[in-house]
Amino acid sequence: MDALPDEFRFARSASGFERSILREILSSSLAKGLSSFAIGMPGTDLFPREGIERAASEVLTGEARALQYGEPSAVLKRHVVEIMARRGAPCREEQVFLTTGSQQAMDLLARLLVDPGAPVAVEETIYEGIRIALSAREPRLLSIPTAAGRGIDLDALEELLVGGERPTLLYVIPTGHNPLGHTLGRGERERLAKLARRHRLPVIEDDAYGLIHLEAGGEPDRLPPVRALEERWVFYLGSFSKILAPALRVGWVVAPEEVIARLSPLKHGADVDTSALGQLVAARFLEDGLLPAHLRRIRAAYRARRNAMLAALERHFPPTARWHAPTDGIFIWVELPDPVDTTDLLRESVEEARVAFCPGAAFAVAGERNASHGMRLSFADSTPEEIEEGIARLGPVVRRACG
Amino acid sequence: MDALPDEFRFARSASGFERSILREILSSSLAKGLSSFAIGMPGTDLFPREGIERAASEVLTGEARALQYGEPSAVLKRHVVEIMARRGAPCREEQVFLTTGSQQAMDLLARLLVDPGAPVAVEETIYEGIRIALSAREPRLLSIPTAAGRGIDLDALEELLVGGERPTLLYVIPTGHNPLGHTLGRGERERLAKLARRHRLPVIEDDAYGLIHLEAGGEPDRLPPVRALEERWVFYLGSFSKILAPALRVGWVVAPEEVIARLSPLKHGADVDTSALGQLVAARFLEDGLLPAHLRRIRAAYRARRNAMLAALERHFPPTARWHAPTDGIFIWVELPDPVDTTDLLRESVEEARVAFCPGAAFAVAGERNASHGMRLSFADSTPEEIEEGIARLGPVVRRACG
Repeated sequence: MDALPDEFRFARSASGFERSILREILSSSLAKGLSSFAIGMPGTDLFPREGIERAASEVLTGEARALQYGEPSAVLKRHVVEIMARRGAPCREEQVFLTTGSQQAMDLLARLLVDPGAPVAVEETIYEGIRIALSAREPRLLSIPTAAGRGIDLDALEELLVGGERPTLLYVIPTGHNPLGHTLGRGERERLAKLARRHRLPVIEDDAYGLIHLEAGGEPDRLPPVRALEERWVFYLGSFSKILAPALRVGWVVAPEEVIARLSPLKHGADVDTSALGQLVAARFLEDGLLPAHLRRIRAAYRARRNAMLAALERHFPPTARWHAPTDGIFIWVELPDPVDTTDLLRESVEEARVAFCPGAAFAVAGERNASHGMRLSFADSTPEEIEEGIARLGPVVRRACG
Repeated sequence: MDALPDEFRFARSASGFERSILREILSSSLAKGLSSFAIGMPGTDLFPREGIERAASEVLTGEARALQYGEPSAVLKRHVVEIMARRGAPCREEQVFLTTGSQQAMDLLARLLVDPGAPVAVEETIYEGIRIALSAREPRLLSIPTAAGRGIDLDALEELLVGGERPTLLYVIPTGHNPLGHTLGRGERERLAKLARRHRLPVIEDDAYGLIHLEAGGEPDRLPPVRALEERWVFYLGSFSKILAPALRVGWVVAPEEVIARLSPLKHGADVDTSALGQLVAARFLEDGLLPAHLRRIRAAYRARRNAMLAALERHFPPTARWHAPTDGIFIWVELPDPVDTTDLLRESVEEARVAFCPGAAFAVAGERNASHGMRLSFADSTPEEIEEGIARLGPVVRRACG
């Protein structure tokens, strides 16, 4: 018996599990105290700390259940319904499912919809969180072309569907795309909604940045979510992480009730419930009517930060580098000439310039090199001055790499 | 194209997903305002609300990162190491992995260790959370006999292993078993440790109730966790839910570093990180040195509640009902004569006596009827007076059922 090997046997899907490039950059840049444009963190200096502290104090003093296991908060769901209405995608409370942030929503929907090995459609350059959530299902990834100034190639998607593929889901970020920064236009949203309906294709619309509209004077609900155009086949993901605070760990799904009903036991198995404290603090903050002013404040700050970064890029980056100005969200995607590999560049940048960014490889569908010459810069968690300084330090490293 | 059916296709493992009986009882008993002995909730009246409120206020005022995405808190890990030493199972910080409660630890370990369809060993009567966490893997469940006054049948386990089965894991609750209330003796712990080592069997030791020792004057660490006896093959699960507050959603795994390293990307895919707020509030509470006094207080209260329930059962239950006095944890398992089905009884109890309990069926390995005549009574979230009143109302319903 003692001849058995003293090694653990791990599940196949977990053994092949991708390392999280973003997670490693977060750890090392935090540990080293670098200027970091790498991680999609909201501005630490912009949190409505007073309002949240007051809400927490009221909740902890007044509600014994704030520390207990708990049911999804009906008050919070009602506020989510209000937020959805403002966002231009009305829904009913029964269609709202609260999650431990949006990442959990991706994980639960992957489990609900994707059998092991089943086909899943994703853009060839996409937020790594969805790929990580999917990877336990070991799906057959159908990669859809996408590009910074254009977004998902809907011709290619339609061709795939007409050709007979039946993906179990398509994941998209139509507003403030992560990492490309792109926002789809109205016509493309309508076409996507129509494709979803016609082909019975469940579309997960991640709208984490839907309320971070950066154009001065522009209505945040100017472009409706795709969910507003197709209420059955589009499942909407919202989150308080970017508009309030990630540490509350509260996000939501809006989907047909038959989908919601099936998420509940999956959620129970994943983490029992969403923190009552996080739910009640968010609900109290919203009850206090503090969200609209806070949104105005962070939109103005993010607009200034975006503008500072665009100006700094003009000043310090070489003419061969290319980027677009995002109208929504917190990311600028910079493309360097094709032979440059930004994963290599990151090492030089961290060592020489003490600046971190997220290399394109983090967002490429496994094995593809389409994004390897791109870099994602997040402008949300740095002041305009820090942005100018950081990009000024990064510039020489990038110029040298571009020859 | 429009001839496609307008129905969602769900993944096979999610379609077969078990409804959570506990979750449904929680919902309905909360909604109806019933006396509830059904759910394993800590005493709502016993939360250290002042200490937690002060910790939350300090953290929200003093630490900007309390609302941000965050790394696992080093301070909290250091306190976990201290708690583990007090618990009699010393470990190092590198062996500690923080999770969104213990349920997430079960989910992540199930994903890490269990390939779809692989064999998993569980007691025939066991906490439903582990079965729900496992069910997405559609494992082949190897059911080990267990009983209220005796615990897991280690002869049967050894026979299984010697017979050549190689389960990917065994899940056990050696202290304050949920739902049976049993605590394994020292000799059984040593034998279980030896079986794990000899057969290279990963054992998940759920110690959620390990610090809720109910004997007056007894040392909480009198019986070491199995992990103290086998540091490689036993993975320990701890939680702040029962000793501090569930809404913090913080639990921990203690395991070899090569296991910890693999949990990290799985955790990222599940929910990115454990709430910085929950982590920092727990850490501050512990820094303030408030845990020892709080533990003394809740142990004394739970002891009084257990004693009140044992006395009430003697007074109001029929002589054919049987139970044991638990030395740890928050549950009493009552067995009624065999033909009585406690799921049916629950309906009568709710309607006639307005008292909820958890029927044994919630804890039976799927398809088995071994626990159908048992009921789990939780005494943690009711005062001694409420316990006497509730059991007095429940008594006649039970007596009638027992003929």
